[in-house]
Amino acid sequence: MTIQNNITKLFGIRYPIIQAGMVWVSGWKLASAVSEAGCLGLIGAGSMKPELLREHIDKCRSATNKPFGVNIPLLREDAADLIETVIESDVKIVFTSAGHPGKFIDKLKAKGIIVVHVVPSLKYALKAQSAECDAVVGEGIEAGGHNGIDEITTFSLIPQLKNSINIPIIAAGGISNGRSIAAAMALGADGVQIGTRFAATIESSAHINYKKKLVESENEDSILILRKIAPVRVIRNPVALELKELEESGADKILLLNKLGHKRERLGIFEGDIENGLLEAGQSLNSIKEILPARTVIDNLLKETEYAIKNLKDICNE
Amino acid sequence: MTIQNNITKLFGIRYPIIQAGMVWVSGWKLASAVSEAGCLGLIGAGSMKPELLREHIDKCRSATNKPFGVNIPLLREDAADLIETVIESDVKIVFTSAGHPGKFIDKLKAKGIIVVHVVPSLKYALKAQSAECDAVVGEGIEAGGHNGIDEITTFSLIPQLKNSINIPIIAAGGISNGRSIAAAMALGADGVQIGTRFAATIESSAHINYKKKLVESENEDSILILRKIAPVRVIRNPVALELKELEESGADKILLLNKLGHKRERLGIFEGDIENGLLEAGQSLNSIKEILPARTVIDNLLKETEYAIKNLKDICNE
Repeated sequence: MTIQNNITKLFGIRYPIIQAGMVWVSGWKLASAVSEAGCLGLIGAGSMKPELLREHIDKCRSATNKPFGVNIPLLREDAADLIETVIESDVKIVFTSAGHPGKFIDKLKAKGIIVVHVVPSLKYALKAQSAECDAVVGEGIEAGGHNGIDEITTFSLIPQLKNSINIPIIAAGGISNGRSIAAAMALGADGVQIGTRFAATIESSAHINYKKKLVESENEDSILILRKIAPVRVIRNPVALELKELEESGADKILLLNKLGHKRERLGIFEGDIENGLLEAGQSLNSIKEILPARTVIDNLLKETEYAIKNLKDICNE
Repeated sequence: MTIQNNITKLFGIRYPIIQAGMVWVSGWKLASAVSEAGCLGLIGAGSMKPELLREHIDKCRSATNKPFGVNIPLLREDAADLIETVIESDVKIVFTSAGHPGKFIDKLKAKGIIVVHVVPSLKYALKAQSAECDAVVGEGIEAGGHNGIDEITTFSLIPQLKNSINIPIIAAGGISNGRSIAAAMALGADGVQIGTRFAATIESSAHINYKKKLVESENEDSILILRKIAPVRVIRNPVALELKELEESGADKILLLNKLGHKRERLGIFEGDIENGLLEAGQSLNSIKEILPARTVIDNLLKETEYAIKNLKDICNE
């Protein structure tokens, strides 16, 4: 199966599948493996200082000649430094998230960089379009990690975006098998961004305890916490449940932030403390049964997508 | 376009589209209009006493020769009486929800009645399969009205069910346009159940104020409240926001039920008090732009579905 559309053309890739930039997970190893397999790998700068990001970009370039990109959360205090780093390192594709897309776009576009912004709702998609982003990632509430406050699901979000914006749409949130890739494209997406499935790969830089936890968990283990301050989707574990209970008891922001403390994602994802760390993960965990090489994940996704589309053709006779 | 599969065969209908049984909305007028158009109409017994249900069944039968069904929420105190009524009235299709599917199934099956159970998660789907239900409705958290506590979305739920059960799957929750019908089938569903889009039809027995509110609302206006006692998805209005704030302040069940009071759905949906009544509605409200006859809704859905599937074929060249 080949899929050639505005997303494959925009990035110069073979399949319209993007590996999400994930803190403590997607360094140069994962990004280059995904790009080598014909998709788009993203280095997740969210957990990197500018110097470390530069090192990952250099290593990624040594490992693949194919296009790759960098994801930068704009709410980072040093976002401007990370932007400088990608410009100096001659990165050609930047995904921005968690902040106003207009903030650095002129600077990036002036260097010929393709800019994609991650949005949880139509309101932000329209802002991204006005700011002249090249595409948006429409991210449903199924997605692991930080999410929008309106809790719009992938199923509701993508047709809504398709009806109201003209730039290409990449669907994200709950996509971890070929059926959901085919479904996302039926909803109107031009491509998909996949996070959690790639977090459980050999090349993911996450701790083995976290990867194993992804494999063991079911859809029902994925919960949304901190709804009132900054919603984040994680795997149900002692610290997540404590935060959820505190929240439900009516605790205010200060109490919640105090309980949350610092570096909980690092503790869970990178250091492997699966009881006290936050384990970011999307809702579609049932499809993740094994820790596999990124290329095998992609091969399986492509086979499953083809099968899902063929099935749809078979039941519908025009 | 024709779609013939195990769902169309099971019910003897032309298209695998089911109109959800909805309190105060789906009486005989809506159910018969939907069945006449080649889909499956359901009379929603949730807001009816046995005598009224019998009347609706009789009128529905006078209005159409085609198959129709009745939806019965099993948590109703008089569920056994409603079950008796459908048996006595010789109804051939029953959808059960909100309760254990095994409760009345032997009685129904002994009369040759097709039984479908509505489930919010795999756990309940497996129970329904064990109880020998003929099919399940897998209902994502996008759905209007009462929902499961695990908050599994349609996008995550349907592939999960497809991988684990053998009986046919009807997807529900967030389906209000052809793109989402095509997507649901790509995810593995054999049919779809659509609620909110049919609530905003001419034949819906809801109050005009409620129908207009559905048309005016956006995806972002759909909120999930009463998460701790019995999650229900409604349109954001003064009473829904009061309940949400009370919940977030840590109020217990007694306080919440006290504030909720009685017959809030009737007040909003049937009596048209859009400030003090609860306005049950799914998340995909953006696709609902007009109050239309049920047949026009179905014609549009079929055209859109065909278009969505054709598009998917065009971008994927094997």
